[in-house]
Amino acid sequence: MHEISCAWKGDMAFSARVNGHEITLDAEEAFGGKDTGPRPKPLLLVALAGCSGMDVVSILKKMREPVTWFNMRVEGDLGEEHPKTYRTIRIVYEFKASDGLKDENVRKAIDLSRERYCGVNAMLGKSATMEFAVSYL
Amino acid sequence: MHEISCAWKGDMAFSARVNGHEITLDAEEAFGGKDTGPRPKPLLLVALAGCSGMDVVSILKKMREPVTWFNMRVEGDLGEEHPKTYRTIRIVYEFKASDGLKDENVRKAIDLSRERYCGVNAMLGKSATMEFAVSYL
Repeated sequence: MHEISCAWKGDMAFSARVNGHEITLDAEEAFGGKDTGPRPKPLLLVALAGCSGMDVVSILKKMREPVTWFNMRVEGDLGEEHPKTYRTIRIVYEFKASDGLKDENVRKAIDLSRERYCGVNAMLGKSATMEFAVSYL
Repeated sequence: MHEISCAWKGDMAFSARVNGHEITLDAEEAFGGKDTGPRPKPLLLVALAGCSGMDVVSILKKMREPVTWFNMRVEGDLGEEHPKTYRTIRIVYEFKASDGLKDENVRKAIDLSRERYCGVNAMLGKSATMEFAVSYL
């Protein structure tokens, strides 16, 4: 069982406590906030990147693949109607080509995360179409 | 369209950029991390609390209800099998009874958030059974 708490701090600001760490959430000024922290909804995209990213680095480490740099970019396309949900979520897994990674192993690690291990991907995938790409910089 | 990025910081640590703010994610030590930030999955529960909490304070403000203190506790029950997803998510909306809030309006604000406005509730509700309670302290 996971548990978090989230306390109202006035106006549109909230302070959440999760695994002993604090995260501030706030609205932008046009919606009565002061932008003291991120908006709640894109935190879903952060959770997806973190969950899948941890899977991918763990699996590539077991494969003894030499990763020195790894970044993800995640985009979510919002629908127009309330409640506004992500219709499509795209995640781009970026690596340094100079690391000499085997593309086959990188794709195997990503597939294992997406199909077997990443619970965030599984949950968001019930609502949005999940797309991904691999990019070597 | 919402967009975030998430950079690997070595071991199991990641640093995400969302709405211009930074959030660190990390695993616990048993999973190769150093606990420099929260785990990814419970961020879904933080997103839910923030999204619904912003709805509720906005609606209660329009109703001119006198809120001085507001807190949420969110629990997610994880399934056993991979990928591990939340089966049930419970959110408790806590207020101070001494504020003299009208319970009818509090429940109306929560219902509006859950049924009409909160996109995070709608997305997670495709995967988990969503439960809630109201509590006056």
